[in-house]
Amino acid sequence: MKHFDSDYMEGAHPLVMQRLLETNLEQTTGYGSDDYTAKAKQLIREACGSDELDVHLLVGGTQTNSTVIDGLLARHEGVLAATTAHINAHESGAIESCGHKVLTLPSHDGKVDADEVEDFITNFYADETYEHMVAPGMLYISFPTEYGTIYSKEELTKLHGICQKHDIPLYIDGARLGYGLACPEADITLKDMKDLCDIFYIGGTKVGALFGECVVARKGLLKHFFPLIKQHGALLAKGRLLGIQFATLFTDNLYHKISAHAIDMAMILKKGFEAKGYKPFIDSPTNQQFFTLQNEVIDRLMQTSTFEIWGTRGKTHSTVRFVTSWATKQEAVEQLIAEL
Amino acid sequence: MKHFDSDYMEGAHPLVMQRLLETNLEQTTGYGSDDYTAKAKQLIREACGSDELDVHLLVGGTQTNSTVIDGLLARHEGVLAATTAHINAHESGAIESCGHKVLTLPSHDGKVDADEVEDFITNFYADETYEHMVAPGMLYISFPTEYGTIYSKEELTKLHGICQKHDIPLYIDGARLGYGLACPEADITLKDMKDLCDIFYIGGTKVGALFGECVVARKGLLKHFFPLIKQHGALLAKGRLLGIQFATLFTDNLYHKISAHAIDMAMILKKGFEAKGYKPFIDSPTNQQFFTLQNEVIDRLMQTSTFEIWGTRGKTHSTVRFVTSWATKQEAVEQLIAEL
Amino acid sequence: MKHFDSDYMEGAHPLVMQRLLETNLEQTTGYGSDDYTAKAKQLIREACGSDELDVHLLVGGTQTNSTVIDGLLARHEGVLAATTAHINAHESGAIESCGHKVLTLPSHDGKVDADEVEDFITNFYADETYEHMVAPGMLYISFPTEYGTIYSKEELTKLHGICQKHDIPLYIDGARLGYGLACPEADITLKDMKDLCDIFYIGGTKVGALFGECVVARKGLLKHFFPLIKQHGALLAKGRLLGIQFATLFTDNLYHKISAHAIDMAMILKKGFEAKGYKPFIDSPTNQQFFTLQNEVIDRLMQTSTFEIWGTRGKTHSTVRFVTSWATKQEAVEQLIAEL
Amino acid sequence: MKHFDSDYMEGAHPLVMQRLLETNLEQTTGYGSDDYTAKAKQLIREACGSDELDVHLLVGGTQTNSTVIDGLLARHEGVLAATTAHINAHESGAIESCGHKVLTLPSHDGKVDADEVEDFITNFYADETYEHMVAPGMLYISFPTEYGTIYSKEELTKLHGICQKHDIPLYIDGARLGYGLACPEADITLKDMKDLCDIFYIGGTKVGALFGECVVARKGLLKHFFPLIKQHGALLAKGRLLGIQFATLFTDNLYHKISAHAIDMAMILKKGFEAKGYKPFIDSPTNQQFFTLQNEVIDRLMQTSTFEIWGTRGKTHSTVRFVTSWATKQEAVEQLIAEL
Repeated sequence: MKHFDSDYMEGAHPLVMQRLLETNLEQTTGYGSDDYTAKAKQLIREACGSDELDVHLLVGGTQTNSTVIDGLLARHEGVLAATTAHINAHESGAIESCGHKVLTLPSHDGKVDADEVEDFITNFYADETYEHMVAPGMLYISFPTEYGTIYSKEELTKLHGICQKHDIPLYIDGARLGYGLACPEADITLKDMKDLCDIFYIGGTKVGALFGECVVARKGLLKHFFPLIKQHGALLAKGRLLGIQFATLFTDNLYHKISAHAIDMAMILKKGFEAKGYKPFIDSPTNQQFFTLQNEVIDRLMQTSTFEIWGTRGKTHSTVRFVTSWATKQEAVEQLIAEL
Repeated sequence: MKHFDSDYMEGAHPLVMQRLLETNLEQTTGYGSDDYTAKAKQLIREACGSDELDVHLLVGGTQTNSTVIDGLLARHEGVLAATTAHINAHESGAIESCGHKVLTLPSHDGKVDADEVEDFITNFYADETYEHMVAPGMLYISFPTEYGTIYSKEELTKLHGICQKHDIPLYIDGARLGYGLACPEADITLKDMKDLCDIFYIGGTKVGALFGECVVARKGLLKHFFPLIKQHGALLAKGRLLGIQFATLFTDNLYHKISAHAIDMAMILKKGFEAKGYKPFIDSPTNQQFFTLQNEVIDRLMQTSTFEIWGTRGKTHSTVRFVTSWATKQEAVEQLIAEL
Repeated sequence: MKHFDSDYMEGAHPLVMQRLLETNLEQTTGYGSDDYTAKAKQLIREACGSDELDVHLLVGGTQTNSTVIDGLLARHEGVLAATTAHINAHESGAIESCGHKVLTLPSHDGKVDADEVEDFITNFYADETYEHMVAPGMLYISFPTEYGTIYSKEELTKLHGICQKHDIPLYIDGARLGYGLACPEADITLKDMKDLCDIFYIGGTKVGALFGECVVARKGLLKHFFPLIKQHGALLAKGRLLGIQFATLFTDNLYHKISAHAIDMAMILKKGFEAKGYKPFIDSPTNQQFFTLQNEVIDRLMQTSTFEIWGTRGKTHSTVRFVTSWATKQEAVEQLIAEL
Repeated sequence: MKHFDSDYMEGAHPLVMQRLLETNLEQTTGYGSDDYTAKAKQLIREACGSDELDVHLLVGGTQTNSTVIDGLLARHEGVLAATTAHINAHESGAIESCGHKVLTLPSHDGKVDADEVEDFITNFYADETYEHMVAPGMLYISFPTEYGTIYSKEELTKLHGICQKHDIPLYIDGARLGYGLACPEADITLKDMKDLCDIFYIGGTKVGALFGECVVARKGLLKHFFPLIKQHGALLAKGRLLGIQFATLFTDNLYHKISAHAIDMAMILKKGFEAKGYKPFIDSPTNQQFFTLQNEVIDRLMQTSTFEIWGTRGKTHSTVRFVTSWATKQEAVEQLIAEL
């Protein structure tokens, strides 16, 4: 059986496991006060190209989103996001459970449109009854999006400019950040991120770690964040586990290298489907590939591979998603293509 | 100056004021444990045609919505509602501040479509990842809607049937219930309400009371509601004020009579506009009337009348709303028409 | 039957009712944007002796406490209060339902001790694990307290100094503020309040209004408070009702005069009990009087009067509370004494 | 340097690490739907002696407490707990951030007294104003407590009986459950737990796992718990990590064996201190040992060992805590004693 369900089907990259093993019986203080965490933070700051960044290590994606958003918004504010945004669609209401509304914008293959963001905010304050409505307090986007697409540098610059004009932070969910930055279509690097948004996270769970997400924020943006992390149940007792993992991923460019592999695999898969006459459902340059296939093709492929039906099954055709990762083997992809 | 901004521009109906004055120096116990409240509840039960109803008196509309919805939903559930629903658009995030997501459905002149409700719920449970999403835990509709439209008995029966099939309560926001029931197009009465939904409220603030909303629920549906009312800051110390007002409104059919007057005034207004060649923006049979007018007409009317621009002002034309109420004077309406 | 259960057993002071009646059919805009509300706010600012004050009119006490506290605290902060504080004991968890912990201090006849406040804060930050605990983000006290006692100017000055030193606001719950200021033991006036705390409210519900509480805050302390009021369900559609009431109460010193009457009545009651050999359970100078009586005395008095047993009934003796108000009649008090 | 700060200073037990390594590159589905998790749950059920138990694997302790408590309480309810309870003192307000009050009871060396629980509940419902207060909706205790003490079977039976009588669940925080069950003073076993409470968790983080807490609940007690776990940010993408760890810990009695080692070390430490004339501050039979020492002794010991000052440092003496774990080396303890 070959598996293309998601990018979190394996454990960690072997080098990460090795470091966890090597350090296993060392004794360190808890809650991220250890040296490994300090080192990871320093490596992350270097990789991001600035010392003026606050870095926090959390455990999972939904947890990170809800803790960060709760930390950024005032009570009367909500978070702008595409209807397809993970926080709107797939977090069981975590954002609302903290008291905040997700203010939805149209999704364009997973992305928000800068003009629509600008219009939303402008129209909001033009409405005389705006104090009876939820104020747009921040903008959430994902890079890559839930549909595998990415923003260009120009698009991000424009979005960030709008946010700055209206004095609200731009937050980028980078659950798959590595895969977004590693694809040839990306015209930004990790070092650009700090200038293109106010806060983002570097996903570990889907990119080589056992678990772990690394929040990088403009210095001072998040206030009193430590007790908030604790309050959200997001504080790992053995914080060094996060430190060790991220330190490993940000040594010798490992994070980027393993991300690039996933993109290579995704492109082999994409071209293989295209060569057999299938057009992508969405033109994704990253590690998630979507195709609309006949149901009988899907059923046949599912005898030897696992992957997700995107949304609900159609009558004759359905859209499916294939995901590659740092751990995907080329032979598995080639076999899948052969079986098409 | 004539005023058509809203249906809460005056105090209370004179008979309500008179009763408040007559009883003013009587001493009663607090928090709705008094005889006036008991009597009001009994009159409401009679007006609704059943003794098997729980009745609660609260102060305001947003407060009532958030307390009721909080009382009905489990933590993992959200409330289905039209995008134009008051709870989604104009309550400053009160529902989300209690932890619940508003799950939006398309608005059809303010109404939800039964098939779209059914599809939403069916698709939700058909999605294999549904436990990562917010479950539809109740349906909220308003009668009349925020656009003045009303549901027919057939439509309500269908909506209620879908809710019953999926075992979720149907809640009707009746901030303007009187105006909805009093219009000739309505094919339901107050006595029908208990069979067409699980819980609704009878709006007082906009229909003759100084303030006050009366929640009517299937017996036992709301559990431990008293402490929840208190927790939501919705418990009036001098609860008898609500009891006296609702007892007055439900004596001698007052609530219905004064509602009917507002509809009469709205129809004079509507026909007056139509006679001058203006087509309604929405074909509302109730006390809110919407027209799209040239901006210069709006500016001229605004010299002698107040009313709301609906949404934001357009470049050449804008949509405006005129609202009548139990207190609207016929001469004011006629003067407005004359000034068109 | 004579009633001493509470200070909210009647409607409003006749002058308040008269003004509500006189203005009843006037048309005003909603949500406190009317002239009556503006006038009330101006009168309140004058009565408080400063134009540099933000004034907000809300409906009820628990609602006011939870909205204000939610508006003042950051997510990781809690509110310091006596164990006997209304917010800790009798608000059905309204504060916690907004996400905030009540951090309790010992109660000294309802009051907190300044040194204990100082120690709490100092010890909190001296604890190396303080970020795992809830930070003291504000201090709540009531004036008079739930036991009828009041703070001296010296005590308030000391408490406020401690709060200022630690940069947290001092909030005074003035549900019965009039009764506290009107008693001869009080060495402060309404004009002193703004200097002795950062924010307080002037209770209307218990002091002559039908309902209504008036928040007075240091300018700029409460940010974005209007949408928060709405979100908390505390925004009255016909806001002018609050404006009219408070404008009346703060014309010709009415608020103070009617408060003084309640104190006169309470002192007759207190002295009457003392003259018959009963020592007060707490030495309250305000409109709540507490005595521990034999159960048979209580049962006898309850045949002709109503009043509350404080806490639970004891085996032989129980503590009871008698409350006077602006509306209490002297003959009722004298009759009660006679029946002792 | 020797470390006695806490029981989470190392990584995982070597056998746990080995299994994580062996399975690292296997592919499994996410969110706990994998076979390892299924196997762990089955082993836990067997270890607990019943198939009629719901088992859930979460990441951390505070997270588990807040998710479980949120899952058990209705909106108007709070959780009874000792003032010293972790949820009251050291979770940064996580419980309150979910909307629930912690209703505190006196702490007796970390334990609650059954009679005081009974009195609290009885007095609550005897108070006529109880609907204005927060209802006791569950009882939280820890085993062992935050002070290292444990309840006897008789005590637990009595507490559980009171809870059953009042129809509220008894929840046991077992962050250190292994250490509590492994000490000779314990007269209960893991198999007894299901009969002595309604829900508890088996701590992994402090007892041999990298991280992980295992909730064991009476079947059906927790409803719709999966989306709640997700909403609380407590759902691990690679759920199998929890499954593998707990399966290892519950194979060949590993969990118990390594717990017993920590107790052996703690007893050597305790007896060593006693032999040198120091009396324990609290008579703890488990892996946390408390002593009040002269500050100069503390300072001297701190040159070669780390451990926590309990609360704040006193003027001449302070209370300190020494914690042993599954990983503590006997020579380290002996060296500490020698240095006393």
